Amino acid sequence: MSDLQDYFSRCAAVTEKWLDERLKSGSSFSDGLTQAMRYSVFAGGKRLRPALMFASFEIFSDDFLAAVPYAASIEVLHTYSLIHDDLPAMDDDDLRRGRPTNHKVFGEAEAILAGDALLTKAFEFASDRDNTPGVTDAVRVKAVHALALAAGDRGMVAGQFADIKAESSGADCETVDFIHLNKTAALIRYSVSMGAILAGRGYEDERRLDAFGKNLGVAFQITDDILDLTSDTATLGKNAGSDLENGKATYPAVYGMEKSAEKAAELVKEAVELIRPYGGKGGRLAEIAYFITERKS
Amino acid sequence: MSDLQDYFSRCAAVTEKWLDERLKSGSSFSDGLTQAMRYSVFAGGKRLRPALMFASFEIFSDDFLAAVPYAASIEVLHTYSLIHDDLPAMDDDDLRRGRPTNHKVFGEAEAILAGDALLTKAFEFASDRDNTPGVTDAVRVKAVHALALAAGDRGMVAGQFADIKAESSGADCETVDFIHLNKTAALIRYSVSMGAILAGRGYEDERRLDAFGKNLGVAFQITDDILDLTSDTATLGKNAGSDLENGKATYPAVYGMEKSAEKAAELVKEAVELIRPYGGKGGRLAEIAYFITERKS
Repeated sequence: MSDLQDYFSRCAAVTEKWLDERLKSGSSFSDGLTQAMRYSVFAGGKRLRPALMFASFEIFSDDFLAAVPYAASIEVLHTYSLIHDDLPAMDDDDLRRGRPTNHKVFGEAEAILAGDALLTKAFEFASDRDNTPGVTDAVRVKAVHALALAAGDRGMVAGQFADIKAESSGADCETVDFIHLNKTAALIRYSVSMGAILAGRGYEDERRLDAFGKNLGVAFQITDDILDLTSDTATLGKNAGSDLENGKATYPAVYGMEKSAEKAAELVKEAVELIRPYGGKGGRLAEIAYFITERKS
Repeated sequence: MSDLQDYFSRCAAVTEKWLDERLKSGSSFSDGLTQAMRYSVFAGGKRLRPALMFASFEIFSDDFLAAVPYAASIEVLHTYSLIHDDLPAMDDDDLRRGRPTNHKVFGEAEAILAGDALLTKAFEFASDRDNTPGVTDAVRVKAVHALALAAGDRGMVAGQFADIKAESSGADCETVDFIHLNKTAALIRYSVSMGAILAGRGYEDERRLDAFGKNLGVAFQITDDILDLTSDTATLGKNAGSDLENGKATYPAVYGMEKSAEKAAELVKEAVELIRPYGGKGGRLAEIAYFITERKS
């Protein structure tokens, strides 16, 4: 296993252990809800957002474990977005991470509610004083607010809305840029800048990491678009070619394949330049940035 | 207009003005999302939860306006829950507050996203430092955390989940109690206890108001169940008799009509006893409590 794979595994393991201990049913009446939430949370994702948050936080701090509740928070929020995106009224996907999607297993109403509960859970975790002993209330408030801005109607949900609309109306470059920036990059920006927020750093570091995350998020989505066209279902764990089939607004569709790959590489290069001032401390983040465009699934 | 109606109007007016200024589209790509969010937020509800929060806060403080952002926060969260409850996969309702439901006007995907955005917005408002200048970060963190607990998988969403499940499996007293306590009472408890949290009061006041809100929330839902059976569609603004039609777990269905009305009255009486120590300062809250079982819609 490469050193980076090992880092991903370590980030995933601590995040999953923390989540496993806390995603418990409160009553026999809601056991099925907890089951639906856990099904998608523990579906074996890459845990990219937690890894980005850990790597960013580690630029400023040795206290790796302090970031765990926030890593768990962003991961459950990301999971909610996948569950709702897969719904019949949205992308109507049957397969996610190689397994049937949430609504296929538990039903549509249950999947909507599992998503709602996970979105709410993200804010519960981010505001939980008992589980974040070394953190100030000022940091907790900033974390919650930044997360809400990234996830809401001027962030991820706006991107998803534009994505759905573009299916019927067709897409141009401006539309695709808006979708990528909001649907995907918003949460990645939050994940990376959260490292600086949690470390109590000022505006300059937050801005720098936010800009890094912006580039990375767009590069990530362009790579996703490319993989949807070039990879196969078994490798992706979701239906390959589904973007084309659904008339999705993708980067290759409006910019062409060659320009898309160039753009992703250029964005990553720029991003890595941005964190050069951190020297070796930023090495892990840079490694993840390169991984993002080179991955096969 | 009675004094209480006047109070409701005043609470609604400040909350709606605040919301009107803040629920704006961030981009032409998400105009339709903002439109869908605003459609349901400005559908002319009673604003009961804001009124409860204001009345509770005014026991301890004269600074009425300080509660507005939190009143707005609970109202958008409540609105999200109505939009998602009405979805075809859930209760499949066509009518809400006398108007077509959100998904009927904007489409199902749009309604899911409008709900997601409003849920997220509730946490954005509750953690917004710029709009809550006199409030400490400690209070903001407590508010966000209490809201997340009330709204999530051990609160409102758990109640909604049990409600959906009871439609197919039938209901007994225990099930109905669980549903009412979580689906409806959880947010009302939060709204009332938030008065004490915002005023920076200690555990005792929070607990007392939480207990008041618990009784009131259950009484509110019992009254809703009764009205669904005894009122008509025009008065309710939603389809009368739909609980029976949908095989809903209601209080009258398992306890009988007479016992339901008795129970609601008893819960309100107990609640009013709980806030007796506040004397005249608690008068408004008591008035709202009586209104809850006496209302006609």
